[in-house]
Amino acid sequence: MKKVGIIMGSDSDLPIVKKATDMLSTLDVPFEVHVYSAHRTPAEASDFAKNARSNGFGAIIAAAGMAAHLAGAIAANTTLPVIGIPCKGGMMDGLDALLSTVQMPTGIPVATVALNGAANAALLAAQIIAVEDAQLAAKLDQKRKADAAVVLEKDKGISERL
Amino acid sequence: MKKVGIIMGSDSDLPIVKKATDMLSTLDVPFEVHVYSAHRTPAEASDFAKNARSNGFGAIIAAAGMAAHLAGAIAANTTLPVIGIPCKGGMMDGLDALLSTVQMPTGIPVATVALNGAANAALLAAQIIAVEDAQLAAKLDQKRKADAAVVLEKDKGISERL
Amino acid sequence: MKKVGIIMGSDSDLPIVKKATDMLSTLDVPFEVHVYSAHRTPAEASDFAKNARSNGFGAIIAAAGMAAHLAGAIAANTTLPVIGIPCKGGMMDGLDALLSTVQMPTGIPVATVALNGAANAALLAAQIIAVEDAQLAAKLDQKRKADAAVVLEKDKGISERL
Amino acid sequence: MKKVGIIMGSDSDLPIVKKATDMLSTLDVPFEVHVYSAHRTPAEASDFAKNARSNGFGAIIAAAGMAAHLAGAIAANTTLPVIGIPCKGGMMDGLDALLSTVQMPTGIPVATVALNGAANAALLAAQIIAVEDAQLAAKLDQKRKADAAVVLEKDKGISERL
Amino acid sequence: MKKVGIIMGSDSDLPIVKKATDMLSTLDVPFEVHVYSAHRTPAEASDFAKNARSNGFGAIIAAAGMAAHLAGAIAANTTLPVIGIPCKGGMMDGLDALLSTVQMPTGIPVATVALNGAANAALLAAQIIAVEDAQLAAKLDQKRKADAAVVLEKDKGISERL
Amino acid sequence: MKKVGIIMGSDSDLPIVKKATDMLSTLDVPFEVHVYSAHRTPAEASDFAKNARSNGFGAIIAAAGMAAHLAGAIAANTTLPVIGIPCKGGMMDGLDALLSTVQMPTGIPVATVALNGAANAALLAAQIIAVEDAQLAAKLDQKRKADAAVVLEKDKGISERL
Amino acid sequence: MKKVGIIMGSDSDLPIVKKATDMLSTLDVPFEVHVYSAHRTPAEASDFAKNARSNGFGAIIAAAGMAAHLAGAIAANTTLPVIGIPCKGGMMDGLDALLSTVQMPTGIPVATVALNGAANAALLAAQIIAVEDAQLAAKLDQKRKADAAVVLEKDKGISERL
Amino acid sequence: MKKVGIIMGSDSDLPIVKKATDMLSTLDVPFEVHVYSAHRTPAEASDFAKNARSNGFGAIIAAAGMAAHLAGAIAANTTLPVIGIPCKGGMMDGLDALLSTVQMPTGIPVATVALNGAANAALLAAQIIAVEDAQLAAKLDQKRKADAAVVLEKDKGISERL
Repeated sequence: MKKVGIIMGSDSDLPIVKKATDMLSTLDVPFEVHVYSAHRTPAEASDFAKNARSNGFGAIIAAAGMAAHLAGAIAANTTLPVIGIPCKGGMMDGLDALLSTVQMPTGIPVATVALNGAANAALLAAQIIAVEDAQLAAKLDQKRKADAAVVLEKDKGISERL
Repeated sequence: MKKVGIIMGSDSDLPIVKKATDMLSTLDVPFEVHVYSAHRTPAEASDFAKNARSNGFGAIIAAAGMAAHLAGAIAANTTLPVIGIPCKGGMMDGLDALLSTVQMPTGIPVATVALNGAANAALLAAQIIAVEDAQLAAKLDQKRKADAAVVLEKDKGISERL
Repeated sequence: MKKVGIIMGSDSDLPIVKKATDMLSTLDVPFEVHVYSAHRTPAEASDFAKNARSNGFGAIIAAAGMAAHLAGAIAANTTLPVIGIPCKGGMMDGLDALLSTVQMPTGIPVATVALNGAANAALLAAQIIAVEDAQLAAKLDQKRKADAAVVLEKDKGISERL
Repeated sequence: MKKVGIIMGSDSDLPIVKKATDMLSTLDVPFEVHVYSAHRTPAEASDFAKNARSNGFGAIIAAAGMAAHLAGAIAANTTLPVIGIPCKGGMMDGLDALLSTVQMPTGIPVATVALNGAANAALLAAQIIAVEDAQLAAKLDQKRKADAAVVLEKDKGISERL
Repeated sequence: MKKVGIIMGSDSDLPIVKKATDMLSTLDVPFEVHVYSAHRTPAEASDFAKNARSNGFGAIIAAAGMAAHLAGAIAANTTLPVIGIPCKGGMMDGLDALLSTVQMPTGIPVATVALNGAANAALLAAQIIAVEDAQLAAKLDQKRKADAAVVLEKDKGISERL
Repeated sequence: MKKVGIIMGSDSDLPIVKKATDMLSTLDVPFEVHVYSAHRTPAEASDFAKNARSNGFGAIIAAAGMAAHLAGAIAANTTLPVIGIPCKGGMMDGLDALLSTVQMPTGIPVATVALNGAANAALLAAQIIAVEDAQLAAKLDQKRKADAAVVLEKDKGISERL
Repeated sequence: MKKVGIIMGSDSDLPIVKKATDMLSTLDVPFEVHVYSAHRTPAEASDFAKNARSNGFGAIIAAAGMAAHLAGAIAANTTLPVIGIPCKGGMMDGLDALLSTVQMPTGIPVATVALNGAANAALLAAQIIAVEDAQLAAKLDQKRKADAAVVLEKDKGISERL
Repeated sequence: MKKVGIIMGSDSDLPIVKKATDMLSTLDVPFEVHVYSAHRTPAEASDFAKNARSNGFGAIIAAAGMAAHLAGAIAANTTLPVIGIPCKGGMMDGLDALLSTVQMPTGIPVATVALNGAANAALLAAQIIAVEDAQLAAKLDQKRKADAAVVLEKDKGISERL
């Protein structure tokens, strides 16, 4: 199976990224995690991206905050699908990171998820790999049903909790 | 090759969606276009999504404005990758559509692109299909190089244009 | 008397919804509470909405956060008045939920109240039922007068509290 | 049938309000239109609201821009359902009007619709009256089906229009 | 000397308003404080405003949060200068209150100060009264000089505090 | 009668400021207009402010856009009431000018009016002077009544205009 | 004299950048203009930055819109002062470009100027070079005085233009 | 070596400014710190700016919050490069300070850094001085490499920390 690359701009984003690695582990999707900064280690970040396809990756997740250039810098150096997680820091309520991640110029898309949406970024990466992997697709369907069952279970008991 | 489904919430979004179909045509990626509204034809929208995988789709692009629920409504009914294009109407400068598209709950990701970013949505869909299609991946790389060449060509002549 | 349906997208919204059920209890307006997610249980959410009128409901309150599609998804499946409560999560200061709830396309209105405005959502539902229920209308008028009296009582003692 | 009162803060809002009166006319819901300003004619605005229930109104629609106090000023003087239309002027992209209309204090709800959402305000008013009027409810359901048919008709011809 | 009227929309605004009364006390400007809500006690609020000039007031300060209509409702009923303090609640970071207070229609100005800017509201009221009161103007000038002296005193010791 | 000083940061603000001078002319309030920039002519701007009280001014209106420092720079050099008009340029929809004008530190208030709200700035200046001028106060009351009459006249004819 | 490098992300930014080259020409500061995209030609952009100091540049100006990563990508590859011009496109009113440019992580500053503020970016670059160039500093002072004279000239004639 | 002047609008900004002085100390760049308020001590602030070049300063850093006029007021009185640090207070999430600092009129640039970005402001000042100081430029390059090494060290250990 193709691997998912996960890059965070700073190890302070680890608690957020952890939700992505947990999700991928649950789905048995292989992954590799790195700390590369678009600004402090631009060469390493772009080298990773340039070689990602030949190194067996199927999608790359990039998590960064503020002027969140990491996903864009990765996307500029690969034609693999790149998923951007805007990380909410203490400033501007995350709007800065969201806009920096999503408003990409034509030719270099970044698949942006919600602020701090690491679990969904991992799910999206898994969905991408599952396009040609029926077994993984079946797992995703089962997870979806399990999520629904949790909601319906809560619906049953809700009146007593009021 | 897997097809790309393109759903627009209203045919007034056609000029935006056109940029997506042009891009897919250029890349020889097959696609199918529909007008389904999350609110006016919720059954048709969810039926399309439920059957998309078995109908040979590999990714779905959904374009909608305002409280842009379409991508989310599609994503709720499939585990295929769903790409959301927030469409900028005359109201709220597109911020309403962007936030409605991207801020999805855990379990149901939408790969969001820039406001009106239909060309990038199509590219992203192609990149997803190219994960297991080396020929399409090569086309994407060529396009990337061609885009770069255009920039460098403009760089050459820029001093005369000042 | 017609019932008020109250749907929350997640049981984490229960503390907010509680203010709605308290208000309806005070006014002796019957209600029914459910946990249905627009994205995780779209079928159950739309089934509830489709059958709401014939099941004796006169208004439906939907509470959800982030890309708050729940109220819109309910409204897409009924012509009963649907009241949306945008719930403020930790992200985007609630602006995402507010815009996702209120910016509905023509044909599918959602009566939106303030962020976390569950008590007002309940009052609005009661006001809707009271249009043809003079006794409930009288109760609402009495409550209004009681609220005013509380303010005027505080006005009396305010100088001493400076 | 109960009437719908429509108040606009300035006659410059007439083009917006027109969409509300057209909708109500289509649905054969009786209505009455006034120009009252929350700030320039506060007495007339509150008098209208105070007497609205006894004058046969079932819902009041208030349309205003900027610091859009009109809906709130009406709501403060009646316990009828009050629907607020934030009108987008040239300033602040309508965010000022939206927040001024929706962020009401507990006890005085305003059912807020989208910016310039006059057609939906009228629909919502009709939905409120239809709670106890099966014939009007049937009309609303027919309109909903007709709206869906329009979408599906457009879906049929969309491929040729690309 | 003309009095300053201070109206707060809710006694929960008292800690903010306290900074205004402290400032007025320091400057020996007489004042009167009330709790009147634009929505819960509209009649009392407008009665206060209508009679304010004949009751010896020279300026009115109104403090309110959310859809902060109070200052506007007061201003609609008097031609005395009305100073609005937008109060920052837990929602929308105060932007709702700021826009609701400042974006008034032509004919009914509200002199708006910063979010929670009660001390400045009081100073502004004093400045208004001081236009025809040389003694109070002298006090304001002395206060300004004292404020400057505090800054310059801090400047002297700042290097040691690094 | 005390004069009103009107300062604009650039003569490109003249069309906005014109609404202020028209209003003051209508009310027979004397005024003096200047172009001084907080940044390009800081000395002239502060000199005007320092001498304004002794030169017979009762209030100063400052109009500026972008990082609208002019009102604050004037207010820093006088204890006369200073009224700030944030001018909406082509950038940031005027939010930059509004926040730069209103968010003043404690000790230096600026009475801020709506974006481009020059007529209201003039009215506010007149209201300030009218605190001790019964004749001007009477004029302001008459103007208020005339404004109301205009609204009520429009209310009469509104039904025919639908 | 050290040269100023000016990089624009797309030649569509040329009309904005023109104001920078005009200003530098006026001040006799040498410059070189390039079109390099952070995303389409990342290698060329970083190569330019890496060699800028040894190639005789003293400051670099980078102009880009949307998720304006260009200034950051340049700054990541040089320790020369980098000045960022956020360019206002049709989307998000320029807020996306502003936040993407200014919210840089610690270690990699970008000196950000106003939206489309190309003339000021050029002035800032000239001011940087003038730190060790008394002749250029004198020119900047003269320009400042000339700007002030223009304002004061307009002040003289302003009353006639009302 | 030219000195860096650091001005803060209030000593409450000291914890932010401390990061600037620490950075300058590390780089052996001389500096001088002052507390001057654009509004409370406008004369002292402008005097400092007017004499800064002749007093041996090469750049000035100004830190202020809310309607952050300090950097602009300094820039209006010198042609030295002025770096603005918008300080995030409790209000408006820092957007007020950012826009007040960056949106300067043509002719008076302020080099704006991120909210609370004092370390970067100091780095930028050092970069400006390093334009003509090869030794300082070398130090900046070494610091940049050290920052990169820290990231790469963290990259090595990241997998164990998941």
